[in-house]
Amino acid sequence: MPEADHARVLTIVNEAHQFSAANNILVTLVERDHARGELTVGEYSVNPYGNVHGGALTTLADVVGGSCACSRGGRCVTLSCTMEFLRPAAGPKIYCDATPKKMGRKVSVIQLELTNEVGDVVATGTYSYFMAEA
Amino acid sequence: MPEADHARVLTIVNEAHQFSAANNILVTLVERDHARGELTVGEYSVNPYGNVHGGALTTLADVVGGSCACSRGGRCVTLSCTMEFLRPAAGPKIYCDATPKKMGRKVSVIQLELTNEVGDVVATGTYSYFMAEA
Amino acid sequence: MPEADHARVLTIVNEAHQFSAANNILVTLVERDHARGELTVGEYSVNPYGNVHGGALTTLADVVGGSCACSRGGRCVTLSCTMEFLRPAAGPKIYCDATPKKMGRKVSVIQLELTNEVGDVVATGTYSYFMAEA
Amino acid sequence: MPEADHARVLTIVNEAHQFSAANNILVTLVERDHARGELTVGEYSVNPYGNVHGGALTTLADVVGGSCACSRGGRCVTLSCTMEFLRPAAGPKIYCDATPKKMGRKVSVIQLELTNEVGDVVATGTYSYFMAEA
Repeated sequence: MPEADHARVLTIVNEAHQFSAANNILVTLVERDHARGELTVGEYSVNPYGNVHGGALTTLADVVGGSCACSRGGRCVTLSCTMEFLRPAAGPKIYCDATPKKMGRKVSVIQLELTNEVGDVVATGTYSYFMAEA
Repeated sequence: MPEADHARVLTIVNEAHQFSAANNILVTLVERDHARGELTVGEYSVNPYGNVHGGALTTLADVVGGSCACSRGGRCVTLSCTMEFLRPAAGPKIYCDATPKKMGRKVSVIQLELTNEVGDVVATGTYSYFMAEA
Repeated sequence: MPEADHARVLTIVNEAHQFSAANNILVTLVERDHARGELTVGEYSVNPYGNVHGGALTTLADVVGGSCACSRGGRCVTLSCTMEFLRPAAGPKIYCDATPKKMGRKVSVIQLELTNEVGDVVATGTYSYFMAEA
Repeated sequence: MPEADHARVLTIVNEAHQFSAANNILVTLVERDHARGELTVGEYSVNPYGNVHGGALTTLADVVGGSCACSRGGRCVTLSCTMEFLRPAAGPKIYCDATPKKMGRKVSVIQLELTNEVGDVVATGTYSYFMAEA
């Protein structure tokens, strides 16, 4: 996928993912075998302890992971995921980087690392996606 | 935990989980070793294919699972999760039932089943929670 | 798959899975959407605490799960797995039941429950398999 | 843990893990926040396709991951695991490296990477361990 197409993926993914966009989650970069995104933490991002809700973290991971899975073209749906919540997550932003464990013709497996403003890893995950032609 | 406390858990969990409440996710029942909740699907619940976003499903699972983990008392934080997305999920509502695999003193492991209006299982998951005194 | 074929699956799976057979793991039943197997616990099944080793449990789950995934025909390879070790496992035997979460054309997702002689659940898991024509 | 203790861990882990030792799985290195091990592939390591059995890979991951979790002292039991089988695994040896995602007082989360002789990653995993005083 040439650069113009990566820009197109960004536009589509950020508009179409109503759930993530409505929750201040944005994919900020898509390049071959890498995607990056961020959650801007707000008053509606939190759990009962005032930390970022696990659901916000899995949403961020899901959409950034899917963008990575599609970074060579095609489209995908999430097949399964695992997440480990390593320490309390707090704002102003949570960042997520996605890199492939496997870019497959049928299934791609993507590794996710979520970090806070000072670079601490707050959560990690592995998402598997079914791949299809665009 | 007597019934009055289960009602208290419901009040706390639905108010305090800003992220889930803001996304139309409600815990509707907490009883010993069981919790139930639901997502009311709206225009902001969807992914690029118009189905319920995976992040909405994991958020639902997380908060209902935690309510089950605390259904004998105490409080908890999510340690890790796995989810399998079995078929496309669509509204008007998605329901989630949580039952224990293990109610532990330190870690509880909760099984989640998410169903649509006609009872199809759309996703399953396993959430692990760190337990602490209330 | 008619009954004769289920018998054939049993023969193949128990002979061909050298690693499981060499470790006293046997698939004992394959029927449509269900498989069952067992580990006969011996002196070489254990971990440093004298309990059944986690690796023996995942091996049992893997081969019984694959037998279930193929119980309508076809063959499969394991794509991913999750396991929860709920309590210490001890002999004389550990049993494993496999039931489908999803029997797919491309991917099947199988639920595993491992129990000891008195019916306690010692571990649970979810295995995903790539499906192919036989 | 000083170096002498790392040597002691190696001796204990390789002797006591009957299941892994009986299956030609050896922990070869334990140092602070890192462990390494290997499976020597033999005729009893395989699945029906002649590749290394998934159960052999999860066993290798489990014992090497536990050695890493205990590399600052203490002992552990496996709480849960996830594995992704990325490509067929074949001998003569499969190597496994374990590094921490989190070294916790109660739970440690360890990342596993399994490679073949030429350095291809054949599987990855995440193992969680309950920690206890030695």
